[in-house]
Amino acid sequence: MSEFNLIEHFRNFHPVERTDVSLPSGDDCAIMQVPPDHELVVTTDTMVAGRHFYTDIAPEDLGYKAISTSLSDLAAMGAEPTWLLISCTFPEINVEWMEGFKQGLNEIPVRENIQIVGGDITQGPLSITTTAHGIIPQGTALTRYNAKVGDDLYVSGFIGDAGIAINNFGEPYSALTHEDISYLENRLNRPEARISLGSSLRSLAHSAIDISDGLMGDLKHIMHASKVGINIDIQKIPLSLSLQKIDHEDAIQAALCSGDDYELCFSADPKNRRAIQELSLQLRLPLTIIGQVTQQADITFSNADSITIENITQGYEHFTVMP
Amino acid sequence: MSEFNLIEHFRNFHPVERTDVSLPSGDDCAIMQVPPDHELVVTTDTMVAGRHFYTDIAPEDLGYKAISTSLSDLAAMGAEPTWLLISCTFPEINVEWMEGFKQGLNEIPVRENIQIVGGDITQGPLSITTTAHGIIPQGTALTRYNAKVGDDLYVSGFIGDAGIAINNFGEPYSALTHEDISYLENRLNRPEARISLGSSLRSLAHSAIDISDGLMGDLKHIMHASKVGINIDIQKIPLSLSLQKIDHEDAIQAALCSGDDYELCFSADPKNRRAIQELSLQLRLPLTIIGQVTQQADITFSNADSITIENITQGYEHFTVMP
Repeated sequence: MSEFNLIEHFRNFHPVERTDVSLPSGDDCAIMQVPPDHELVVTTDTMVAGRHFYTDIAPEDLGYKAISTSLSDLAAMGAEPTWLLISCTFPEINVEWMEGFKQGLNEIPVRENIQIVGGDITQGPLSITTTAHGIIPQGTALTRYNAKVGDDLYVSGFIGDAGIAINNFGEPYSALTHEDISYLENRLNRPEARISLGSSLRSLAHSAIDISDGLMGDLKHIMHASKVGINIDIQKIPLSLSLQKIDHEDAIQAALCSGDDYELCFSADPKNRRAIQELSLQLRLPLTIIGQVTQQADITFSNADSITIENITQGYEHFTVMP
Repeated sequence: MSEFNLIEHFRNFHPVERTDVSLPSGDDCAIMQVPPDHELVVTTDTMVAGRHFYTDIAPEDLGYKAISTSLSDLAAMGAEPTWLLISCTFPEINVEWMEGFKQGLNEIPVRENIQIVGGDITQGPLSITTTAHGIIPQGTALTRYNAKVGDDLYVSGFIGDAGIAINNFGEPYSALTHEDISYLENRLNRPEARISLGSSLRSLAHSAIDISDGLMGDLKHIMHASKVGINIDIQKIPLSLSLQKIDHEDAIQAALCSGDDYELCFSADPKNRRAIQELSLQLRLPLTIIGQVTQQADITFSNADSITIENITQGYEHFTVMP
């Protein structure tokens, strides 16, 4: 199959057609319309084989993850996702593999009405670059810059799962059942972008970030951008049932330092506690207060007797090889 | 240098600050404003080492080419370029190399007031993915879909230069001087996106495409999209002085089939000939009529006695290795 046929093959597979797309993929560029009084929100992410994913990842999962990790950045701003461009570098043309990959790519866009409006396909070492676009009412975006002293600090869902899934590949935890491992690997390979949560938080939160590089690393971004400090209550960190089965320090270490969870971390005025609790029930997603925003520009810990703080590293670095 | 430091280092280097950027790079996403009555125009391209460029390319040239090839797609639509995102995968951190690369990346954006609003840096086999955004007054974009029977068919500048530069690496042409080779390699490594030409053509042309995959391949896109045919007058194809020195069939072959020239090919009503000639003088850029748009859905040739038409292949395919 030639490049042109392959691109055609990909294009015809994508079923979403949004009314705000004036010219879909198939020309030099795509053309879209941003509604009045809205701003355009854009992010791009590259995933490289052996660094961001294992080369034997199921193609369905790779496609899914490439989309969800990009949408997670839009969710962290509170944006409504609209259009995607996907650039793929494949080592070879393997039609069966690509069918699975396309299926994974399309899953979230079909569910969320997001149109793939362009991309590129080329031959080379396996990597995927996703550029995600969203829209947001003018001036309402959540940023890292606006955390206020006294804010509650929240995380969504459970954190550390993806990190323990990676650890478990290297040195399996005897306490984990097949179901646990399946749950954890699913969390690693098919993370959920918290899109509905993000847009609901526009009116409730002061600041937000997605936890892609590990809570500690990402909190530092909020801390530096907002010129505040953070206190984390170690006992409050939400651990999944699977992580509650393994060594507590390993679990906390993963929750604080591992990347790839793609939950949202956000800060909000304590007066919004009830509204956020209601949102949690409505979304069926735990939203847990894990600490507070403080004045002193540092990360401090409460109830940390059970862990060795020095072990907590600085968040995921993409120039460090996966284990 | 860590990933975060490296990203910071890159970010601080970029001097362009547009007033339509609400939130520049440094958060989960960038936020921009599309002016009223304008549409958003987006394209993405990946360049992989050994496929789209030689690994020993000067980093300044690589940066320059990554930007200009993406902007060329915007030019083909007639759009005004506004914002860029650059995802880089580097095999290692080489600060000197990166300084050169950044210099190359910034050259056109500084000249054209285009802001780099985001990107990603990761470790892996060298490749660059550029996503370029532009704006265009509602409904005025040039596409591949609107060529009319009877239109003149034009190309800008000279074509075939980049293809002969690549050929010359393999088997040097004895007729070419050092100056010729330097000119041709510059055409290969530092192509010019025809931005001003593209925006001027919005009111003068019916259809346009940039010649990235070779004239024959790209003309087929216009032909299929517009449901027309094309007649090319081989004698009219504009060849640079350097290409006039080599074997004529080689030169024509490169002009018809080689990629990487990034000139614009467009079709226009013959009544616009004078206006297009004036535009050519104003831009100091040759705009040459090389044929006509015809009814019969095929590419035909006039004055083709000097060449063997069967040799003309189907345009550049990214799944074919560079020579």
